[in-house]
Amino acid sequence: MAPVDLLISDATVLTHTEGAAPGYPDDPGAARAVAHLLEHHDVGIADGAIAWVLPTGTAAPEEREGARVIDGRGRLAMPGLINCHTHSAMTMFRGSAEDVPVHSWFNDHIWPMEVNLTPHDVALGARLAIAEMLLAGVTTFCDHYFSMDEIAKEVSASGARAVLAPTYFSSEGAAGLDRSAAFAAEWHGAADGRITAMMGPHATYTVVDADLERTARIAMELGIRTHLHAAEGMFQTESSLEQRGVTPMQVLQDTGLLEAGVLIAHGAGITPDDVRWLAPVADRIGVAACDKVYLKHAQQSTTPVRLLHDAGVPVGIGTDGPASGNTLSVLESMRTLSLVEKQKEADATWLTSAHALDLATRQSALTAGLGDRIGALLPGRRADVVLVDLGRPHLQPLHDIAAALVLSVQESDVRTVLVDGRVVVDEGRLTTLDVQEAIDGLTARIPQLRDRSHGRRIQDYAP
Amino acid sequence: MAPVDLLISDATVLTHTEGAAPGYPDDPGAARAVAHLLEHHDVGIADGAIAWVLPTGTAAPEEREGARVIDGRGRLAMPGLINCHTHSAMTMFRGSAEDVPVHSWFNDHIWPMEVNLTPHDVALGARLAIAEMLLAGVTTFCDHYFSMDEIAKEVSASGARAVLAPTYFSSEGAAGLDRSAAFAAEWHGAADGRITAMMGPHATYTVVDADLERTARIAMELGIRTHLHAAEGMFQTESSLEQRGVTPMQVLQDTGLLEAGVLIAHGAGITPDDVRWLAPVADRIGVAACDKVYLKHAQQSTTPVRLLHDAGVPVGIGTDGPASGNTLSVLESMRTLSLVEKQKEADATWLTSAHALDLATRQSALTAGLGDRIGALLPGRRADVVLVDLGRPHLQPLHDIAAALVLSVQESDVRTVLVDGRVVVDEGRLTTLDVQEAIDGLTARIPQLRDRSHGRRIQDYAP
Repeated sequence: MAPVDLLISDATVLTHTEGAAPGYPDDPGAARAVAHLLEHHDVGIADGAIAWVLPTGTAAPEEREGARVIDGRGRLAMPGLINCHTHSAMTMFRGSAEDVPVHSWFNDHIWPMEVNLTPHDVALGARLAIAEMLLAGVTTFCDHYFSMDEIAKEVSASGARAVLAPTYFSSEGAAGLDRSAAFAAEWHGAADGRITAMMGPHATYTVVDADLERTARIAMELGIRTHLHAAEGMFQTESSLEQRGVTPMQVLQDTGLLEAGVLIAHGAGITPDDVRWLAPVADRIGVAACDKVYLKHAQQSTTPVRLLHDAGVPVGIGTDGPASGNTLSVLESMRTLSLVEKQKEADATWLTSAHALDLATRQSALTAGLGDRIGALLPGRRADVVLVDLGRPHLQPLHDIAAALVLSVQESDVRTVLVDGRVVVDEGRLTTLDVQEAIDGLTARIPQLRDRSHGRRIQDYAP
Repeated sequence: MAPVDLLISDATVLTHTEGAAPGYPDDPGAARAVAHLLEHHDVGIADGAIAWVLPTGTAAPEEREGARVIDGRGRLAMPGLINCHTHSAMTMFRGSAEDVPVHSWFNDHIWPMEVNLTPHDVALGARLAIAEMLLAGVTTFCDHYFSMDEIAKEVSASGARAVLAPTYFSSEGAAGLDRSAAFAAEWHGAADGRITAMMGPHATYTVVDADLERTARIAMELGIRTHLHAAEGMFQTESSLEQRGVTPMQVLQDTGLLEAGVLIAHGAGITPDDVRWLAPVADRIGVAACDKVYLKHAQQSTTPVRLLHDAGVPVGIGTDGPASGNTLSVLESMRTLSLVEKQKEADATWLTSAHALDLATRQSALTAGLGDRIGALLPGRRADVVLVDLGRPHLQPLHDIAAALVLSVQESDVRTVLVDGRVVVDEGRLTTLDVQEAIDGLTARIPQLRDRSHGRRIQDYAP
């Protein structure tokens, strides 16, 4: 083994079974076995990747000599969290459209306000979002928004990892799709590989089939996936069946998007019949569940985690944009999903904390299309690592670390965060970002951002 | 006005309409108007009570001369949060009974483990709980547990405020009830008035009617209320109707407990018909909602907030014990309730953030039987005040402070906490408690606490 340049010493390490868990997905209980905890282990990092995870002090001296050491005592080392669906820059609208149903949220509030956006607003909104996410242990986010070049520049400067899909509608003609393809050509693999591009059609109800077909062809050519909203709730599936006779999942199938690989935002309207389209391509798709937003918008359907689990389709954790979800915390989303699933399935033994952790790490990495690069502290993976202080009063005494991480943890328990082996949060302090500049800039823009006197909106919401 | 000894300067202040809101409870929208935000205000405190809330700098110099000043800039000053139902010392069992249905939680895990309790365990568990709560801005908790003298001593030493009900079952004979009455005689009004006693029968299904009747008589004599579990879910109401032909609320009516005043833990099985018993005594009862626990235990019914709201019955926020709810955070419970209510009522305009704040402050104070002493920053109320840092990235930019407090805030945003005008948390540090001693003591006890080899349990759960 080569010498490492960074060493996390004597931590409790959340690790994973290599590859899929035994029996997965046939054995619904198998997910319990996926995440393991190793006490008193060292994590060696070389050139931004995990070199090894070994019992404390057992690596040969020549393998650790000269390495910078981060003291892991009393800390849990876990994979960086992955936010599988968000609209990061919408931090600028956080709290601006509260207590309204989803139709009104789009048509009366957000889409009229988005007429006012400038690229600089998006840059500041994204920087604030990245700051919030890194402080909460989110090292990768799958973004879907406008002015994506601005967001890419912020990702690049911040040291974060991101999967970026520029949003487009068919109402723009070919321009939006072309812009998304050009973004991918320019940015895919940029920032030392920390940026991954996806194509970004908005949704199956705002982008016509011909454009979805062209999207799939371009995605195949570029070797990238597509990130879009589909079957956001059962009401959309019913509406699609009524208007077109097909479910949104069949639209993805018929347009070639499933074949090309897709990140499905929400999928709360996925039906048991849809599994016939999804199961065969489970190696290249994933569904992002954002349960807090379903509750807040009083939506009756939520992402069908059990159905997807039984079909072998990865489920990732998302926050949705902060204008609907109010935060970008994957820890919060994971907790909410865990609780909602137990009640929805009327089964307190379902969606255990170990399973929830698997969703937030391994399955989220698969959903983001980065299953071989992140999501687990295994040799060869990128060194995206979060250190959590396990000593805080609200986590103690520590009967069950998985339950503590899912049901008790606070975002501020995240103390140190690495991306590609670089320290981006050091004992709770951001090392790469001037977040105050973003806060001040956005605060000054609030009156203009909220102005709806122009009477326009960027699009109509009528799924 | 008399001079103040403590001054919070230039804060944003969450205040309340004096008394009930106009139109409440007839106008379901009225709750929006109850909580108000005052920018650039000073809070004057004298002898542990709020003296005045005035625009910054407008108090006469002689009223503020010599006062210690706490800088409130960038901070929200709000009433100390109130945890209306918990079993504080069960921090010792946090994470020890996960992913199990409620019957198994009681009969296979918790009630067998509680055979092992010592009074010292309870003292340490309560101290850890108080530390966790104070750090999260919870200044008052309504507790229901064993060895309550030990908890009272910890409350006294910590500077917290508490409403304490010693748990008893009829299976103990008269001993439990007598113990509860003796506790009240000794501790009601103790710790400079920070301790309030309630009678503590466990539940309508573990304490027989004759004992509930005697409880009501003693409570009347002592001038205190009773705190008990009742109608924890609709399944209990159905079981009570089947076995006895009456609902748990009618049991409270028939035994005189409603007349004497009662804190109803959960009440998720309260029916529309029960309102006829509850509405006439709305001035002396309250229901503690603990929605996180309902979800975690896969319970299908939750506290009927809208029904109680329309009947004018106060609803408070509770966490339940940390062995079921995993935390003691009222901020988390308030957020969960807000989200659950919107989905349950299929109405995104219901349970606004302003309404949620009213539940966590004014209505929780009423539920705890302390409606005239705490729950609002009004002259004459005790100075239980929480200062929240509004500048954190996850709260910014600040379009809507109420939404920020309900849907974005983190417990660590609580920086400074006062109880009776005394600083018990100073910039995130506890000033009155040695929490590490409690953590270490409980950690050492884990093997003995978890031992179930004795084959006994303190009680059977068969509601």
